[in-house]
Amino acid sequence: MRLSRYLLPTLKENPADAQIASHRLMLRAGLIRQEAAGIYSWLPAGLRVLRKIEAIVRDEMNRAGALELLMPTLQLADLWRESGRYDAYGPEMLRIKDRHERELLYGPTNEDMVTAIFRANVRSYRALPMNLYHVQWKFRDEQRPRFGVMRGREFLMKDAYSFDLDEAAARRSYRRMFVAYLRIFARMGIRAIPMRAETGPIGGDLSHEFLVLAQTGESAVYCDRAVLDLPIPGDDTDYEGDLEPIVQAWTARYAATEDVHDIERFEREVPAEQRVQTRGIEVGQVFYFGTKYSAPMKALVTTPEGDERPIHGGSYGIGVSRLLGAIIEAGHDDSGIIWPDAVAPFRVGLVNLDPADAQVEAACVELQAQLEARGIDVLHDDTPERAGVKFARMDLLGLPWQVVVGRRGLDRGIVELKRRASGERSELTPADVPARIAEHS
Amino acid sequence: MRLSRYLLPTLKENPADAQIASHRLMLRAGLIRQEAAGIYSWLPAGLRVLRKIEAIVRDEMNRAGALELLMPTLQLADLWRESGRYDAYGPEMLRIKDRHERELLYGPTNEDMVTAIFRANVRSYRALPMNLYHVQWKFRDEQRPRFGVMRGREFLMKDAYSFDLDEAAARRSYRRMFVAYLRIFARMGIRAIPMRAETGPIGGDLSHEFLVLAQTGESAVYCDRAVLDLPIPGDDTDYEGDLEPIVQAWTARYAATEDVHDIERFEREVPAEQRVQTRGIEVGQVFYFGTKYSAPMKALVTTPEGDERPIHGGSYGIGVSRLLGAIIEAGHDDSGIIWPDAVAPFRVGLVNLDPADAQVEAACVELQAQLEARGIDVLHDDTPERAGVKFARMDLLGLPWQVVVGRRGLDRGIVELKRRASGERSELTPADVPARIAEHS
Repeated sequence: MRLSRYLLPTLKENPADAQIASHRLMLRAGLIRQEAAGIYSWLPAGLRVLRKIEAIVRDEMNRAGALELLMPTLQLADLWRESGRYDAYGPEMLRIKDRHERELLYGPTNEDMVTAIFRANVRSYRALPMNLYHVQWKFRDEQRPRFGVMRGREFLMKDAYSFDLDEAAARRSYRRMFVAYLRIFARMGIRAIPMRAETGPIGGDLSHEFLVLAQTGESAVYCDRAVLDLPIPGDDTDYEGDLEPIVQAWTARYAATEDVHDIERFEREVPAEQRVQTRGIEVGQVFYFGTKYSAPMKALVTTPEGDERPIHGGSYGIGVSRLLGAIIEAGHDDSGIIWPDAVAPFRVGLVNLDPADAQVEAACVELQAQLEARGIDVLHDDTPERAGVKFARMDLLGLPWQVVVGRRGLDRGIVELKRRASGERSELTPADVPARIAEHS
Repeated sequence: MRLSRYLLPTLKENPADAQIASHRLMLRAGLIRQEAAGIYSWLPAGLRVLRKIEAIVRDEMNRAGALELLMPTLQLADLWRESGRYDAYGPEMLRIKDRHERELLYGPTNEDMVTAIFRANVRSYRALPMNLYHVQWKFRDEQRPRFGVMRGREFLMKDAYSFDLDEAAARRSYRRMFVAYLRIFARMGIRAIPMRAETGPIGGDLSHEFLVLAQTGESAVYCDRAVLDLPIPGDDTDYEGDLEPIVQAWTARYAATEDVHDIERFEREVPAEQRVQTRGIEVGQVFYFGTKYSAPMKALVTTPEGDERPIHGGSYGIGVSRLLGAIIEAGHDDSGIIWPDAVAPFRVGLVNLDPADAQVEAACVELQAQLEARGIDVLHDDTPERAGVKFARMDLLGLPWQVVVGRRGLDRGIVELKRRASGERSELTPADVPARIAEHS
């Protein structure tokens, strides 16, 4: 993509009302634009990140055996009355009346609707386990939206729902999601730590939040340093196999959000030098809720013995749009964003220092073509601006690699390659660039 | 995908309230489920079609030089007051108040918002031409939603907006979209005919609707039979080049919707034996509206001469979710849907006649793996149902190819391949199946 044909409205100054780094940087790098409080447009570069995150989530959900469907944004109020949640939900639910005065709402979550879909279509234990998910826009009418996409009102969420015959089977479904989540966040280039979280009136131990550690996180978290270095399950993970050892390894050590933090246990179980006390940004949650929806909504299946039983359910959320904020909070410096390779808007920023020079231009066009032929996406800065402006913009946007091409370098047969994260620079021939970058995939 | 692990709730009977074939078949084939009047969930097989259609649209839009962004579903009422449309829009607009009594609406279209985005970020003619598009859910509160996804309330639309310095440049943008649309619909395996349509108070000749011909279409259409056989622009189409000859060829012959039909001209220009009078389903529209939004909203750019001028705009819509209905109206028979290869939920339905037989099962697993290795998606019916039930279900679902594998055939070393559209059957060895199907890509 040529920057001269792109829409990347970067800002030199910090926007006044953005309080945290990710919000400031997303506005400054031209990724989003606020349309109303907590409601954003995704400009082209921001949308590219959103789609890459979404693709990783989808890929791993499918691998874990979940089925994708898509539920609408608007729902009938009566459906929520059936599950008993309509009156309980409070002012965060956006309630709407249509032209015929029928009560609708903008879905903040989908337990009710997915239970209705399941109930209408599945009647036998033979179809179980089943896990249905979608990636859809949700709305929660926050009293005070802030921090950009981190606490927006219209936000993109992946929500999955598992259906099982009993609690033992539901635990297996829970473990599949737990393991999938470890892989999902790792593939995005971030470390999200599963921590014990509130189960509310359901009780039990099947509730974990996945948090990215960052000082700007919304909740205090406490954990054993050892959990920060546990290995991520590999590509050969067998979701049909026994996942208990993996979950066991990740849950044996202390890790809890402030809501369920037990200071005595923390100090008893974790040696002082191993104690980590910091803040975290929630990017995902896995939760077992048993028959909370299936019992009132009569989502029953026949058992092998021939009787009927409400299914045991769980829900599994990932804040897809929120993840952009979390990833930036975890990866930025004074100059701007530092994107992990897998979710960067483009992997390479090609800085053309002399676009009016036909030979430099030709070298850039050739480099771009060679990179794209290897499936590496490129933003080619062919604008007539000063070198300093171009470098600052590339650092702000945070693409993992910068390739700097100019008259002086080409006269020596070289271009400069810079790694955004480390600042490391090297000189090499243009022909060597694609292979060098491809090595890092 | 194994059918035993999938969610494909097919119905034997016709749903009572579905009046047209596509609505009946989408419900019967388990593609969608109604959640409220005109609001649908997309079940897994339906979502696969939706995504394939979306991917074709996106691919051709990008090729034509358009930039994808994503605007939110909810918009501020004040934005529509600024463009002067809020009061004019009428009861089809879903108006919403949030918890702070701020007026929002569920976007039925995005001219206003995209103009505000452009205005905030682009100030010079140098950035032009620019074309911004998104694929997003819209809501129109139809008085009487019906015909399934053909006239739903929550629907998925691709809407693009072009920005140019003057009318001559806007005409070039219009032609790029006109040509892209010809290619988009052709790639989906349907023929959509561009027809002159209303321009309203704007006037001029720059308004075309693209219609799929079908007896169940919502509007009467009139055209010269010759337009039905015009060639579609090829993969080598140069969007930077002169597209006027292509547009000229497609607009020289009579083709008009009932709204602008001129019976005298029709009879004068088209020989009687060439006259086609039928009905059509609108699947896209391209429209030039000049400074209608840029003037009141002050979306100005500086000209090469240094003065400021409101940009000349156009909008270009494609009804992504509606297309499923249109494609089915154009392609079905008494047994069910007949999907074009490019948008079928799966290209191949693998019918395992004896899933309890280990050798048949192994042959199916091997065939599925070989097809998937070639990038051909497969729905493998491994359920224990009767052969007749399986055949009827595959015909109903309408996958382009059926591969039938059973004990008796395998004993002779063969499987049966059936083309859904023609009903043509052939016997071949399992090893020959992938290449035979791949030939048809």
